Amino acid sequence: GAPLGPAMKRKNIPQPSNPLKSFNWAKLPENKLEGTLWTEVDDAKVFKVLDLDDIEKTFSAYQRQQDFFMTNNNKQKETDNDDTLGSKKVKELSVIDGRRAQNCNILLSRLKLTNEEIKRAILTMDEQEDLPKDMLEQLLKFVPEKSDIDLLEEHKHELDRMAKADRFLYEMSRINHYQQRLQSLYFKKKFAERVGEVKPKVEALRVASKEVLQSRNFKQLLEVVLAFGNYMNKGQRGNAYGFKVSSLNKIADTKSSIDKNITLLHYLITILEKKYPKVVAFHEDLQNVPIAAKVNMTELDKEISNLRSGLKNVESELEFQKSKSTQSGDKFVSVVSQFITVASFSFSDVEDSLTEAKELFYRAVKHFGEDANKMQPDEFFGIFDQFLQSFSEAKQENENMRRRKEEEERRVRMEAQLKEQREKERKSRKAKENGEEDGEFDD
Amino acid sequence: GAPLGPAMKRKNIPQPSNPLKSFNWAKLPENKLEGTLWTEVDDAKVFKVLDLDDIEKTFSAYQRQQDFFMTNNNKQKETDNDDTLGSKKVKELSVIDGRRAQNCNILLSRLKLTNEEIKRAILTMDEQEDLPKDMLEQLLKFVPEKSDIDLLEEHKHELDRMAKADRFLYEMSRINHYQQRLQSLYFKKKFAERVGEVKPKVEALRVASKEVLQSRNFKQLLEVVLAFGNYMNKGQRGNAYGFKVSSLNKIADTKSSIDKNITLLHYLITILEKKYPKVVAFHEDLQNVPIAAKVNMTELDKEISNLRSGLKNVESELEFQKSKSTQSGDKFVSVVSQFITVASFSFSDVEDSLTEAKELFYRAVKHFGEDANKMQPDEFFGIFDQFLQSFSEAKQENENMRRRKEEEERRVRMEAQLKEQREKERKSRKAKENGEEDGEFDD
Repeated sequence: GAPLGPAMKRKNIPQPSNPLKSFNWAKLPENKLEGTLWTEVDDAKVFKVLDLDDIEKTFSAYQRQQDFFMTNNNKQKETDNDDTLGSKKVKELSVIDGRRAQNCNILLSRLKLTNEEIKRAILTMDEQEDLPKDMLEQLLKFVPEKSDIDLLEEHKHELDRMAKADRFLYEMSRINHYQQRLQSLYFKKKFAERVGEVKPKVEALRVASKEVLQSRNFKQLLEVVLAFGNYMNKGQRGNAYGFKVSSLNKIADTKSSIDKNITLLHYLITILEKKYPKVVAFHEDLQNVPIAAKVNMTELDKEISNLRSGLKNVESELEFQKSKSTQSGDKFVSVVSQFITVASFSFSDVEDSLTEAKELFYRAVKHFGEDANKMQPDEFFGIFDQFLQSFSEAKQENENMRRRKEEEERRVRMEAQLKEQREKERKSRKAKENGEEDGEFDD
Repeated sequence: GAPLGPAMKRKNIPQPSNPLKSFNWAKLPENKLEGTLWTEVDDAKVFKVLDLDDIEKTFSAYQRQQDFFMTNNNKQKETDNDDTLGSKKVKELSVIDGRRAQNCNILLSRLKLTNEEIKRAILTMDEQEDLPKDMLEQLLKFVPEKSDIDLLEEHKHELDRMAKADRFLYEMSRINHYQQRLQSLYFKKKFAERVGEVKPKVEALRVASKEVLQSRNFKQLLEVVLAFGNYMNKGQRGNAYGFKVSSLNKIADTKSSIDKNITLLHYLITILEKKYPKVVAFHEDLQNVPIAAKVNMTELDKEISNLRSGLKNVESELEFQKSKSTQSGDKFVSVVSQFITVASFSFSDVEDSLTEAKELFYRAVKHFGEDANKMQPDEFFGIFDQFLQSFSEAKQENENMRRRKEEEERRVRMEAQLKEQREKERKSRKAKENGEEDGEFDD
């Protein structure tokens, strides 16, 4: 069993004569062993049973170069010059685990850059635009881990034998603050796009709140709806001074007793058209409501806070890089200093808009008597948005009904005219006939 | 505007001469009006503008019977006797809102029971099994609300004129504790099914926890994997006393340097088959793991707590019903008393199992050195389940490879034999020919 207590003795593990592929497990910290099955487990017994030479042979870190690219890029293989075919037989050093190496290879083949070119692009903050955003996102998945680096460091004298992915990870591990540089670069490249996505949402929220606070037509509409409800509802439901905004979407549930295709909403619209014609166009006052109805405040807050902490990380990396002597070709400090100046300005602009938008939204929700702590923008404006849509649909239906009615009336009128006309003709014909008869059978 | 302060004066709202359809709004409570737009809104102005007579005509609670069933059941209409066609012209009283009435009508037509029959079924706790579970669930959506009841009460002298849905709601509103009876009945009907769904999950959790705690074969397997990892990994990653269970699903990521189709998992299985043959069948020790891997503890806890509170609600309704004098035909007390006895017993059984299962699960997680507060059953057993699947797949692949190899060898052997045979035949033919030659060209 594993010895317990603070002074853990180093295990006596047989050592392979050549490096082996690694098994990417997660070790259990030694302070977590007590009381677990691991205290009852002893791999020393297993070593006596295993054929270690066979394992060494089967999982050697040295292997023939994988024909991954041959199978995937058959055409390329054929056009390649012949000596690469010969060199496929050379034994290659590959210590990182298979799937990771394979995915890393796929990325590198898509990037179509040498390690040296990638290195330069990162040090210059990609001034030549070699690294597209999606590639950077992928590169961030292949940042060498501490354990990779340890392993690769042990074999750095065999650099030329290293497999493509191993070599790539090794080279990148030698860039100082590689991960932070990569993250800063990715953040910089995505910044404008992310701000560009956030801004219209904040703006819609701000303007839509103002719109519902200020629209006189919408207020007039609510007054008319209040009158309808109070006239129609009795008892507990009647005698209201106001109603919850969600009630707007119940108007269409009440149907006329004369024609079940006509709802209270259809009727309300005809009344507005007659008595309050300006109110019918209230949607013109609420143009930003449909966009604001799609704003999820939780997501918006999260994205703002992600931007804030991302910016902070880049700033602290800038401080770090400033504090040390710069190598030639390293443009981090100059590029990032400039970026931070512009980005900070742009970000505080968004933050200020959001603060204003939230204040206005809060006021808007309270203005309608709703609970500002419970109502989120997507719910609040969603109600108005749905009402706007139903309103415009019902208005259209009214027009269609009116048109059909007019056509029907015109048809009836014309048929009547036609009938009258025929009658007239028949009479005149008859009169004529009678005249002729008169002539023929003159008596 | 609306007057503020605690003493709100009743509004002076014009009253229609006949009842109108209701508009199903949600009134804003009077204590929420302050500071809202509703203080700036006055419907009194609107009443002067509206043509109230027209509203009264269009939204009268009295209406011609809706031809809802006529359009939906055209055939039935034709076979119905003629006097119903005449009676369609009778004015009907319909105060509840259109959509609700329509959905209620659909339900009633599916139920195919009279109000009297529904009433009896509810009072007898459905001893004749007239109300299927799904119908009860629907009925619960049409429990008359306080506002419905007020409205219907006002018109109870016109019971015969009430539309089908209105009449149904009115009749149900007269059953004492209608909603609670309906809920109790629905709970009673669903109880066995719900317990039947929960029990196997609790059981799987309990047994699977025991299985992973007790399997010697699984422990032996972990010991072998530990040996492999320690032999293969160097530096920080090596020299482990244990590993996180999730590492089991990384075994297959390490590939052989001889053949990239062979992973460490394939290799491990062949070693187990040779050196630890009993361990290969470790899945037999872990038969409940795949089921336990599908148990979501949050959902399970929620369902148990729903059952508990449901049972408590039925019990307190039983206490209420016991406290009052029973009408003839009301079997609530006798039926529910009996149900509670049986159900409480069955429920505490499940609760006890869950307590035991949780204790065992907690022990199991700690046994593997994992954090029992963070690991949920679906994650913990999910890891083992995935490993069981990969293990059995890799084992099958080994067998396929072995079979293909044997077939290949047999083919080679047979071809060699065939070649030898042909050679022999050729030689003997040659010898014969030579002999013949010898005979022919005897020199």
